[in-house]
Amino acid sequence: MTAALTIALDAMGGDHAPDMVIKGAAAVLPRFPQTKFLLFGDAGQIEPLLRRSPALNGHYELRHTAEKVLSDDKPSQALRRGRNSSMRLAIDAVVNGEAQAIVSAGNTGALMAMAKFVLRTLPGIERPAIASFFPTLKGETVLLDLGANVECDAKNLVQFAVMGANLAHSALGRHRPRVGLLNVGVEEVKGHDEVKAAAEVLRSVENPPFEFVGFVEGNDITMGDTDVIVTDGFTGNVALKTAEGTAKLMAELLRASFKRSIFTKIGYLFASAGLTMLKDRMDPRFYNGGVLLGLNGITVKSHGGTDDVGFAAALEVAIDMAQDRLIDRIKADFSGAFADSLASRPAVVETAPEANQSEEKQNVSARMS
Amino acid sequence: MTAALTIALDAMGGDHAPDMVIKGAAAVLPRFPQTKFLLFGDAGQIEPLLRRSPALNGHYELRHTAEKVLSDDKPSQALRRGRNSSMRLAIDAVVNGEAQAIVSAGNTGALMAMAKFVLRTLPGIERPAIASFFPTLKGETVLLDLGANVECDAKNLVQFAVMGANLAHSALGRHRPRVGLLNVGVEEVKGHDEVKAAAEVLRSVENPPFEFVGFVEGNDITMGDTDVIVTDGFTGNVALKTAEGTAKLMAELLRASFKRSIFTKIGYLFASAGLTMLKDRMDPRFYNGGVLLGLNGITVKSHGGTDDVGFAAALEVAIDMAQDRLIDRIKADFSGAFADSLASRPAVVETAPEANQSEEKQNVSARMS
Repeated sequence: MTAALTIALDAMGGDHAPDMVIKGAAAVLPRFPQTKFLLFGDAGQIEPLLRRSPALNGHYELRHTAEKVLSDDKPSQALRRGRNSSMRLAIDAVVNGEAQAIVSAGNTGALMAMAKFVLRTLPGIERPAIASFFPTLKGETVLLDLGANVECDAKNLVQFAVMGANLAHSALGRHRPRVGLLNVGVEEVKGHDEVKAAAEVLRSVENPPFEFVGFVEGNDITMGDTDVIVTDGFTGNVALKTAEGTAKLMAELLRASFKRSIFTKIGYLFASAGLTMLKDRMDPRFYNGGVLLGLNGITVKSHGGTDDVGFAAALEVAIDMAQDRLIDRIKADFSGAFADSLASRPAVVETAPEANQSEEKQNVSARMS
Repeated sequence: MTAALTIALDAMGGDHAPDMVIKGAAAVLPRFPQTKFLLFGDAGQIEPLLRRSPALNGHYELRHTAEKVLSDDKPSQALRRGRNSSMRLAIDAVVNGEAQAIVSAGNTGALMAMAKFVLRTLPGIERPAIASFFPTLKGETVLLDLGANVECDAKNLVQFAVMGANLAHSALGRHRPRVGLLNVGVEEVKGHDEVKAAAEVLRSVENPPFEFVGFVEGNDITMGDTDVIVTDGFTGNVALKTAEGTAKLMAELLRASFKRSIFTKIGYLFASAGLTMLKDRMDPRFYNGGVLLGLNGITVKSHGGTDDVGFAAALEVAIDMAQDRLIDRIKADFSGAFADSLASRPAVVETAPEANQSEEKQNVSARMS
């Protein structure tokens, strides 16, 4: 089912904008032929590019604005002075109902601030989160929060779980997503009080629109046995970047391995066809698209430095969410029986000092033995 | 300089004990010929193994005990009932001055509890931490805490920094280790209050025995530009396991890549020599050895499932620390001028609500743009 959709694009956001924005939009049309793009930006720069992308004819509307948010603008500045910026006008198009989603590769702080201010958070949701996708042995998993909230309480984590499950439904096609809570061990006695309290709620809530699998550990992120992994913005940000750094280390060692001798170089020639598979599966461009979850409108942040391939990936995430009516699905979960069941749950679990004592030691075992 | 050293070994701890303990001990002798091993365990099982390791003749003393700590013993049980266990007797040998370090691959919770109880924490140190080593583009880095302390305040983090720097000196031969504090961005306004307060102290303390490089992010762990990375036990445990999971994912994809066709299989044959380098650099056995830092005695926890190669790596860490007199070095740092300078520093930094506000948005930028 591909309903007619309009996606608002901040055509001026990102290091390679507007070029990669136009090329990225053209790239997704074959898969989503009924999509229309509402382009906001400098007509002088965009029109020549559109002429070189005939595939987009009839699939776009260009709205000129000379103003744009700069990458070093403070969020507060952007809010005050950016009312006519390409980013702000694209967000306005969603609130006006002209578009079903907005995608920008621009200044993240400004996008978060503007989207929060213009779209507002959904009723019942205290804090929006940033979610993204992670490669696993079996496909992809949703990971959130990636840095929007450094401190999170149990209620925040529970809301992230519900929102993340909906994202897995929309973007990964999971009908009953398996949701895990990131911790330092799988036993109930372990971890922060907030994490334990959130698990208590997720375990006991009635008819959740997902399967709560309990606590998972860092090495479970890439295993692919869970569709959604929930954590606070500090831990999520460190986990994501640690994985990026580890992948980079292994790629460098692999490159060096192949350069060692004439034999390994020959080996590379033979193996390179197979190695492209490895490259493709780990290519960060295919996991581009940070979703701002919890706002009353679909908002996707593309990596600022990405190219047309990466921007197209972010666009596809936005289109998938819009087609699956993600916002309506999240709204529904935060009203009615499930919401009541959530609201009736205890927010914090008491832990005895001895419990905390042994917990400390057991966390150690979690790691080492 | 290789001074005569005695290392106490819990010969019964670990899945493959006592076999891998005896073989591991024999394996380190060529590099450390003046080392003696004080072996605690079941003579009936150990003596036949010693007969098959003539290299150890004159380098060990065997003390028989039929008791041992089981992998599923609770720390409290082990403390109460394990007084004659191989683990406990090995720890006692350090407190008696018979050995300069103790190494065990047994139950981690029990080892932590027994070592804390018998050895005590060093004066001035509030909480021991678990540190281990991480492969980087340029060699190795120390990462702590890995799970001993789920919650950490600024003072704990500062003490981890000092202890970690000493470990980098002893085990990695760094004379002025570069110490980084793990955060979600490198700017001063970002992160938890505890992390910001710890940075404030580390920035202002006089003549530290290390170079404080400020905040680092998850992807910096593998870059190799820092020798020590300090974080709380929750974040450190998640970072370590996320890296392990990512390495596993890439190894699996690499294996699959080489199996794709006859050409990739031929490629593997040519490249395999070079690929062993990649395997070796990422082999977890070479990073085996979790150091319990902050106790009044050198205590190393080997991974429970490791083999003789991994156990030998843990032994070498223990020997390096003993030769470098790690405990005396840490004691010195927590007394005298540096300790006074530390004590005089503010423990917490006040942050204005607006600061926290903008911080939130900026943490987002840290990740995405």
